Amino acid sequence: MYLELYLQEDSGFGDITSDTLFTDEKVKAVITSNSDCLVAGVEEVEKLFKLFDLEVKTKVLDGARVTKGTEILSVAGEARSVLKCERLALNILMRMSGIATATNDLVRRCRKIEPDIKIAATRKTTPGFRYFEKHAVVIGGGEAHRLSLSDAIMIKDNHLKIIGSIEKAMAKFNSEKSTTKVEIEVTTKEQALEAARVGADIIMLDNMTPGQVKEIGAEVKRLRPQTILEISGGITPDNIEAYVPYADMISLGWLTHSTPAKDFSMEVV
Amino acid sequence: MYLELYLQEDSGFGDITSDTLFTDEKVKAVITSNSDCLVAGVEEVEKLFKLFDLEVKTKVLDGARVTKGTEILSVAGEARSVLKCERLALNILMRMSGIATATNDLVRRCRKIEPDIKIAATRKTTPGFRYFEKHAVVIGGGEAHRLSLSDAIMIKDNHLKIIGSIEKAMAKFNSEKSTTKVEIEVTTKEQALEAARVGADIIMLDNMTPGQVKEIGAEVKRLRPQTILEISGGITPDNIEAYVPYADMISLGWLTHSTPAKDFSMEVV
Amino acid sequence: MYLELYLQEDSGFGDITSDTLFTDEKVKAVITSNSDCLVAGVEEVEKLFKLFDLEVKTKVLDGARVTKGTEILSVAGEARSVLKCERLALNILMRMSGIATATNDLVRRCRKIEPDIKIAATRKTTPGFRYFEKHAVVIGGGEAHRLSLSDAIMIKDNHLKIIGSIEKAMAKFNSEKSTTKVEIEVTTKEQALEAARVGADIIMLDNMTPGQVKEIGAEVKRLRPQTILEISGGITPDNIEAYVPYADMISLGWLTHSTPAKDFSMEVV
Amino acid sequence: MYLELYLQEDSGFGDITSDTLFTDEKVKAVITSNSDCLVAGVEEVEKLFKLFDLEVKTKVLDGARVTKGTEILSVAGEARSVLKCERLALNILMRMSGIATATNDLVRRCRKIEPDIKIAATRKTTPGFRYFEKHAVVIGGGEAHRLSLSDAIMIKDNHLKIIGSIEKAMAKFNSEKSTTKVEIEVTTKEQALEAARVGADIIMLDNMTPGQVKEIGAEVKRLRPQTILEISGGITPDNIEAYVPYADMISLGWLTHSTPAKDFSMEVV
Amino acid sequence: MYLELYLQEDSGFGDITSDTLFTDEKVKAVITSNSDCLVAGVEEVEKLFKLFDLEVKTKVLDGARVTKGTEILSVAGEARSVLKCERLALNILMRMSGIATATNDLVRRCRKIEPDIKIAATRKTTPGFRYFEKHAVVIGGGEAHRLSLSDAIMIKDNHLKIIGSIEKAMAKFNSEKSTTKVEIEVTTKEQALEAARVGADIIMLDNMTPGQVKEIGAEVKRLRPQTILEISGGITPDNIEAYVPYADMISLGWLTHSTPAKDFSMEVV
Amino acid sequence: MYLELYLQEDSGFGDITSDTLFTDEKVKAVITSNSDCLVAGVEEVEKLFKLFDLEVKTKVLDGARVTKGTEILSVAGEARSVLKCERLALNILMRMSGIATATNDLVRRCRKIEPDIKIAATRKTTPGFRYFEKHAVVIGGGEAHRLSLSDAIMIKDNHLKIIGSIEKAMAKFNSEKSTTKVEIEVTTKEQALEAARVGADIIMLDNMTPGQVKEIGAEVKRLRPQTILEISGGITPDNIEAYVPYADMISLGWLTHSTPAKDFSMEVV
Repeated sequence: MYLELYLQEDSGFGDITSDTLFTDEKVKAVITSNSDCLVAGVEEVEKLFKLFDLEVKTKVLDGARVTKGTEILSVAGEARSVLKCERLALNILMRMSGIATATNDLVRRCRKIEPDIKIAATRKTTPGFRYFEKHAVVIGGGEAHRLSLSDAIMIKDNHLKIIGSIEKAMAKFNSEKSTTKVEIEVTTKEQALEAARVGADIIMLDNMTPGQVKEIGAEVKRLRPQTILEISGGITPDNIEAYVPYADMISLGWLTHSTPAKDFSMEVV
Repeated sequence: MYLELYLQEDSGFGDITSDTLFTDEKVKAVITSNSDCLVAGVEEVEKLFKLFDLEVKTKVLDGARVTKGTEILSVAGEARSVLKCERLALNILMRMSGIATATNDLVRRCRKIEPDIKIAATRKTTPGFRYFEKHAVVIGGGEAHRLSLSDAIMIKDNHLKIIGSIEKAMAKFNSEKSTTKVEIEVTTKEQALEAARVGADIIMLDNMTPGQVKEIGAEVKRLRPQTILEISGGITPDNIEAYVPYADMISLGWLTHSTPAKDFSMEVV
Repeated sequence: MYLELYLQEDSGFGDITSDTLFTDEKVKAVITSNSDCLVAGVEEVEKLFKLFDLEVKTKVLDGARVTKGTEILSVAGEARSVLKCERLALNILMRMSGIATATNDLVRRCRKIEPDIKIAATRKTTPGFRYFEKHAVVIGGGEAHRLSLSDAIMIKDNHLKIIGSIEKAMAKFNSEKSTTKVEIEVTTKEQALEAARVGADIIMLDNMTPGQVKEIGAEVKRLRPQTILEISGGITPDNIEAYVPYADMISLGWLTHSTPAKDFSMEVV
Repeated sequence: MYLELYLQEDSGFGDITSDTLFTDEKVKAVITSNSDCLVAGVEEVEKLFKLFDLEVKTKVLDGARVTKGTEILSVAGEARSVLKCERLALNILMRMSGIATATNDLVRRCRKIEPDIKIAATRKTTPGFRYFEKHAVVIGGGEAHRLSLSDAIMIKDNHLKIIGSIEKAMAKFNSEKSTTKVEIEVTTKEQALEAARVGADIIMLDNMTPGQVKEIGAEVKRLRPQTILEISGGITPDNIEAYVPYADMISLGWLTHSTPAKDFSMEVV
Repeated sequence: MYLELYLQEDSGFGDITSDTLFTDEKVKAVITSNSDCLVAGVEEVEKLFKLFDLEVKTKVLDGARVTKGTEILSVAGEARSVLKCERLALNILMRMSGIATATNDLVRRCRKIEPDIKIAATRKTTPGFRYFEKHAVVIGGGEAHRLSLSDAIMIKDNHLKIIGSIEKAMAKFNSEKSTTKVEIEVTTKEQALEAARVGADIIMLDNMTPGQVKEIGAEVKRLRPQTILEISGGITPDNIEAYVPYADMISLGWLTHSTPAKDFSMEVV
Repeated sequence: MYLELYLQEDSGFGDITSDTLFTDEKVKAVITSNSDCLVAGVEEVEKLFKLFDLEVKTKVLDGARVTKGTEILSVAGEARSVLKCERLALNILMRMSGIATATNDLVRRCRKIEPDIKIAATRKTTPGFRYFEKHAVVIGGGEAHRLSLSDAIMIKDNHLKIIGSIEKAMAKFNSEKSTTKVEIEVTTKEQALEAARVGADIIMLDNMTPGQVKEIGAEVKRLRPQTILEISGGITPDNIEAYVPYADMISLGWLTHSTPAKDFSMEVV
């Protein structure tokens, strides 16, 4: 459904250049990586080309590390169909590979410090493209985290301001016997300890320094050892390592809202 | 239509946290910029909140330069509706403001060198979010350039490989008397001069050094002074200034595929 | 978005009766319950009428127990709009109240036996109407359980057949540090104990007798006390009580695929 | 279009269990009936699987009576695709077969009393799933009746309250020369006779006892023999037989809003 | 839903002229008829403007005969919104009024000859715009006839070729006791008489001369007086009158596929 | 996406005639032209049939001149699928061929007078069907002209009324260095000359007599020779020739809003 929407977006009234230049020419084209990266999006691009009955041969699977110049796939069939898909195919590959590579780089760096650390995305994704971005994070070795407001419980600052206290909020959930974990976002030590006392499965320490995280995290774990400690808020590749020793999971909006894309190109051969 | 799709994406089965916590509480919330930036997306966010009959007061218009901490707008009404829109509103603002700020920064830097230079986007946008990204470029002072394959003629390398020559391709168009300009992408001096000879309105020099651009651009202008010279391919904020003196327009996929987002937050007050 | 689809389904080419009979008559109409029930769907019906700028006064909130003849809401405005919405409004109320009432009846019966027991729905919902059905279960005091394949991990018999063993499957998940609980469906004591050993958060005993559940459940809890025991498969209002003492949660497809609707009607006054 | 919506509903962000467990495994699976029933939905399920290029072999056609344990179809191909479709396929079969079986049971019981009697559905269907439910009724030997407000004229109580009288309403239609029959719903003998006098093609006696139906029906037929007498309102399998001798057609919302589903399951083999 | 699709079609990436020229100017504009016609589409255009919160004052109702220069409605509000709707509003009015006027002209001409004659549309409508075209026919005094393949039974030549005979086809329907009339399209006298014998409610004489219609129609009526005789196939305003004396209904694809539009314009005042 | 919408429009609840008459019969059918025309729509119709896995053999390509009785294509496969597509296929062919033929007739007539003249469509298309209509114009040898408000800049009378003057409007655009041409619609000589002075690429003389066009056009060309002169407003096949000598391009709403369709039919063989 999404692929059809994207096609509508890029060629709703047809491709006025190719439709004028070509009739029924057949071509073969090759998609190549223009930089070293971890590739993501191959499966989606294959689906795209198949909507037009094009023949696709993939040379590389999602999740593979490739070097600059690696052929990712070849596609053959109607010239007009190949060219109509070109930009969309590359846009999907570029963004997904950018996110997957950045995720994987972080995962590898952080796991050198703490082998069990999890690196997760947030809901700070591009509207209309979330599935692809979350999927890229997973391909890169990260966690998708909450996919939408419908699939996980997260009690955040604005909830607490309205309802008054963590205790009142938690009274509405019963995580121990629930199929869903309950996560609470906290910004102070007092809140963190209250969240632990009321039995939050996941406590997200928001916008804290590594020092605060170290201290508060330790107290939380003492109070409730099974708590998952998630760090979030202002984390970037520059400061992430300082947090790793004190966290079970680190989530970064950065992965989906500010990672640069990786370059790919398609050449008719 | 897009806003409804985005809402479906972020809360297709409802907001299971807020729907459990709240019934009919009313709140007021404020959206604030967390960094200096040129704001874009206010008009779209206002439309979003109005879908839920929320009352919006905008303090800043699209295109304004704001400092960190500036209040962008306030919104009031049903708590559940405000919170349901929160993330989507911020995602729109973050991305659009990131792109608009980066565009504007480039426009200002480049216009110090050449006051008439145009900075343009490409079709390297996020699938499903193109309208918002192109609109952000325009708010930032840039050019939207081709919106889709349907609205402008651009003859690129793959077209030429299939059809054989620029001359053959141009024979299918008659730009002088057409409502649409014809653009040709070239990678060599020979192609550039041929494109000028056949009357291309816009010649895009692809992936060249500033030196090549200087030399080829001059020859093209000598041959056909009214040609618009567009430079593209591998342009980034780091190398753009070297191209400015020799170009009418510089287009960068970077504006929409690799600019970092700007941070905004919403607080219930 | 769903309400608009449903309207398209019921009056895609207009209402050929009312469009012929009426021009701009204004009416007031009242929706009444024709049986004792727990009402669900009021909020959705209110949204529906508001799409047509009709004035709605709700007399009863979602979740209220009402007796036959209770007025649920009144609606006033254009006759053609009121009549165009009539059937859809009633269809939503009928189904949602049927499900909510049946859920609530079960919850109350079962909680007399075990006050903490949870009654949950499954994914056996009507295609195209799931959100409303899951929401009705929640209004009735039940659990929505997994909303879609995207929001929770459940390893079922067919997964195990393909992958070979519970252990191999669980090796791909790490529930302790995950934001999502992991559920495994088992059909034998051996599987149940293996699932407990590998750390499943939720073990679903599928298609067992109360006797089997009692025995296996006890062994599972001995092995791993924090496991949530879910019973499913062939549970109906007739046999549910025998399972209650041995379960943390009982899930029934019956709630959404076989509960009778509750009758409501709308009268112009 | 509907199948794609249903897939979006059940796996909008992918199948997070199977997508983690599997890559490109191939499987074969078999769908089996778990009870005696009249099967409906096979054709739709086949279309669903074909969206994923799965190979389907149907063993039973829509409309067949099967016993518990009968294999309905087999499907083969990508494991992830088969499992993604599993629940939706079963949900379609369960509901459609439930409705088709119930319809067929009623048709057979009633036709023993009156061989020409027609059993019809109403517009009391599940929003978003009407086509499938109406189609199931037809497969079961019943009549779809009015598909939407757009395709048949039915003058109901609320219309009459607004317009004042049956005569005034009928003045707007001219059934004798129309391509569409005109149906009037009546609740009293006076209304029924007036409807006959003004030439209604179908008179629906709403919420009457068998005794009333017998008497009023006879008078209507005397006045206008070609009238189709439809009985509706509160008809269930428990009371339907008492109405059969006096009716041309009996319509029941019960067929689509309160029939239990039939159980089917899918096993990987 | 359709209006939003049409807006997407005409301004998917915004209105690049008005969006550049204007910010928040307010305007009032007036829509005027540029020819004598019967107006249709006012109600739809009003709905369109209201999607943008514009204030509309209609001066003329659907179905009114107006002279050139008559003001149809005025609209006031945001300049950008008014201009974004301008062309779509006019396109709707032009086409619907063209069809409604042509229909009404034919209805009036034909009813001078035979006051009870019905003039009907066919399914030869513009894809994507059928509801509006059928509605225009009704506003003009004609019959919508079959809205889609879903709402009426019509046995045509291709059906008969496949199934073998009218008798075999009719055996599958039982019109007398059905809520839907059955129509059969015939091209010879033999077919017409067979259709009458098997009890077709409506017999459509396809592509015959007035003389053939006169003769065959009379025989059909003798055989089965209540049959509705419909004439179709090649009927235009030029030859329609010759058929009127022998028909109950005349249907013309011409009404929706070949009527010229009526001109309207919108002026900012 | 559009084809699926059109199918939904024509058979949302199935084809109740064919679904009753047929099960899995296979047929072959042939589409034939019933008049001399220039064929357009073949490619679209082929796509339509392929959605249903029907086998299509095209005998004639888009743009071919055919005589009455020419076979356009044959289609083979499931009877129910062929019949479900029949009307939609013919509706597409009829309208597109009607527009393409009318366009081509005008192009040929006008090019006898002035070989370089361009004949263009406008945005006066049928809502929901624009792509097909614009495409038909192109197949007929005409120009699509502006596809939507998003892809070209056209300053019209209502813009000028709001902004005050052509000069003020043009100050917002800089056509010389833009990728898009700027068009201004004028109604007086003064406006035309001002438009030329400010550098409009295209000046559209609206609603003028041939005499006015001759005089004003000459002055405009003297002032700015490269201006494209477009004539529009009230142009029909009856008056077009008088304008040809003085225009670069003539655009007519007539091409898409008032051309009669061409007749095609489909016969099972």
